[in-house]
Amino acid sequence: MASTPSSLPRDTRIDAERFWSTIERSAEIGLGREGGLSRLALSDADKEMRDVFVGWCREAGLAATVDKVGNIFARRAGRENDLPPVVMGSHLDTQANGGRFDGIVGVLGALEVVRRLNDIGHITRRPIEIVDWTNEEGGRFSPPMTASGCFAGAYSLDFVHGRPGDDGPTFGEELKRIGYLGEAPVGGRPLDAYFELHIEQGPILDAERIEVGVVTHAYASHGFLVAFRGETAHTGPWPMEKRRNALVAAARLLVAVDDIGWDHAATGGKATAARLAAWPNKAGILSDWAECVCDVRHDDPATAAVMAERVTRGVGEAAARAGCTAEILDRWQWGGRIFDADMVAGVRETARSLGYNHRDLPSQAGHDAYFLARVCPTAMIFTPCRGGITHNNNEFASREELAPGVNVLLHAAVARADR
Amino acid sequence: MASTPSSLPRDTRIDAERFWSTIERSAEIGLGREGGLSRLALSDADKEMRDVFVGWCREAGLAATVDKVGNIFARRAGRENDLPPVVMGSHLDTQANGGRFDGIVGVLGALEVVRRLNDIGHITRRPIEIVDWTNEEGGRFSPPMTASGCFAGAYSLDFVHGRPGDDGPTFGEELKRIGYLGEAPVGGRPLDAYFELHIEQGPILDAERIEVGVVTHAYASHGFLVAFRGETAHTGPWPMEKRRNALVAAARLLVAVDDIGWDHAATGGKATAARLAAWPNKAGILSDWAECVCDVRHDDPATAAVMAERVTRGVGEAAARAGCTAEILDRWQWGGRIFDADMVAGVRETARSLGYNHRDLPSQAGHDAYFLARVCPTAMIFTPCRGGITHNNNEFASREELAPGVNVLLHAAVARADR
Repeated sequence: MASTPSSLPRDTRIDAERFWSTIERSAEIGLGREGGLSRLALSDADKEMRDVFVGWCREAGLAATVDKVGNIFARRAGRENDLPPVVMGSHLDTQANGGRFDGIVGVLGALEVVRRLNDIGHITRRPIEIVDWTNEEGGRFSPPMTASGCFAGAYSLDFVHGRPGDDGPTFGEELKRIGYLGEAPVGGRPLDAYFELHIEQGPILDAERIEVGVVTHAYASHGFLVAFRGETAHTGPWPMEKRRNALVAAARLLVAVDDIGWDHAATGGKATAARLAAWPNKAGILSDWAECVCDVRHDDPATAAVMAERVTRGVGEAAARAGCTAEILDRWQWGGRIFDADMVAGVRETARSLGYNHRDLPSQAGHDAYFLARVCPTAMIFTPCRGGITHNNNEFASREELAPGVNVLLHAAVARADR
Repeated sequence: MASTPSSLPRDTRIDAERFWSTIERSAEIGLGREGGLSRLALSDADKEMRDVFVGWCREAGLAATVDKVGNIFARRAGRENDLPPVVMGSHLDTQANGGRFDGIVGVLGALEVVRRLNDIGHITRRPIEIVDWTNEEGGRFSPPMTASGCFAGAYSLDFVHGRPGDDGPTFGEELKRIGYLGEAPVGGRPLDAYFELHIEQGPILDAERIEVGVVTHAYASHGFLVAFRGETAHTGPWPMEKRRNALVAAARLLVAVDDIGWDHAATGGKATAARLAAWPNKAGILSDWAECVCDVRHDDPATAAVMAERVTRGVGEAAARAGCTAEILDRWQWGGRIFDADMVAGVRETARSLGYNHRDLPSQAGHDAYFLARVCPTAMIFTPCRGGITHNNNEFASREELAPGVNVLLHAAVARADR
């Protein structure tokens, strides 16, 4: 009979009821539409959830530390505490119309792993840390994954603190207001490994009735923040040929982006018109400013690069057509073979040895793990997600569907920490 | 030698310096971008301007009354005060990037007319009233021309008071806050006539070096408020063929509207993508709601009707293409031969008799006068507007360019009031 890669008894399993009770408690904080959550980063609801989470960590004997961008690290000592820790986690914030599982499963699954280790008195060789990354969703402060990006050195502390919220105050002001402006430096310390358990946020595992997704790589994604500049004028008498309506330029770009997505839909490509803001954006006056966020994604990096180039040309085309100027203010790119091959193999072997049906698949969404992969060996584990529905109040996964992923996290993380 | 239609001595002219000084004082209140104003309706700046205006009216011996939607009427008694008044006016609010003349010229021009009548001791047969209509621009509260619409019975008092501002409080709350929630009923009283002097907001008079525009009719305009409903989902894994991104539907409609404008540009048609709002409108999540404001305008009503039908079909097409549902929440229509033929002829004859070069032309923008035309005989007088630039901080008209229009207002209004 095969053994697991982990040093735990092979039949060790998490307490699925206890884990589910934490999901249910979380689902009470920051209620959104029916069944969903609207727990925007650094809101009162986020603070409440953080307080509950820190309370649970302390009860589990962990030492909680908060860094200067609000990331919470809860540490369980190992046998050799000078060794870098094995870190597990995700995020507790949600989109404005978010679900009860996205991100949350990764943080509370890690908590359950630690609780289980406490139950059985297993002390790992390396210390273990649970992490809640601040503002993964970007539902209130842009960009998403702000704080894991800062941890990985992609964003400066000042940049993160200065991010304006949609409702006025900055990231830094809100962090201070809710009492999570910590003193620990952000990043700059070695991590042994990072595991992120997450709902798939896609339909594959659910459709194929697969219990565990072994995340091999990430879709190649290219994102764009584009600004158009035109000129205000009256919507009535001003002749078409003199108009420089930035809203028209932005709308033309977003339509072009959507068309790109359809052209590559048959091979699983996606292109998203995500955001459009304009000013003054009122009846009676042409807008002289508009800003768009859009992205393209494809499993094949070469195809994604072609899609991205088409967006770039689409920016110029949309601007020219509307008589405006355009500037690509920011471009981001992620994806590819960023995960650690040994850790991915370890996750696959763990799923197999625990008797779960499993499959390899790419991640298509953005995750904090993408930034962590720049810092340390990283792997992701996916659970099913009913119908692939996510970023929606109807997001769902049952405790039976979630438990296998948490068990794989338990054994894979302990194997890593004990090696 | 021809006489003017007015009972005033033919060489009576306004005091252009005094008039200009009121324009300059107004230009200090609610500063916007360089040279422009941002005096949004019911803001602190609007209150300040109203206070100044009411002070000027009182100094001119007028009795100021405020109605329940904040319209200010300043009355100058006539010889027969039981007769309905001749009303002159426009609005003192501006767009967010507005100019120093749009609307303002009509109110302060009317004030100068009254001051001139005071100078020469001329008492008209009918009383004269100056009016400042609240929120003509709709730069903060939609729809535009809210309060003249209420005066004409198009909008109920409750509807107007409940209009939400872009920055939170309602029209009614802001009206009360700035102290202009008056007690006078809105409308419901007979007016003898309404004159509105306005900058052209188009390039014709300036290009042709014409001093006075005789407004014969209004462009046929059709406006639309359209809402699209879709479904939130993740911008990454969610397949193109399952997406119901309301932002895409809205962008597709606005592009279609812009195309309609270009197809009719050669005959002076216009189509405007004016506003787009979406929710959540963030990176990472598809929007499940979007709302657009758009309009089409043409001098020929039949052509405008065809353009409008194309918008209507475009709404369905955009929704279908994006997998969304659509609802046209509001449609408005104005224009046509709405002005009083005798008053238009009187304006034309006045301009001729005063020796101004003048021409007939249509109005292409929306004006309070369109609603007043439903209530009483109405006419508009246009002054030049440099380069046709308006709803822009570079809007400009010199005192020399404005004076002829104010003089035509003086003689035409007095002729009407004395008949």
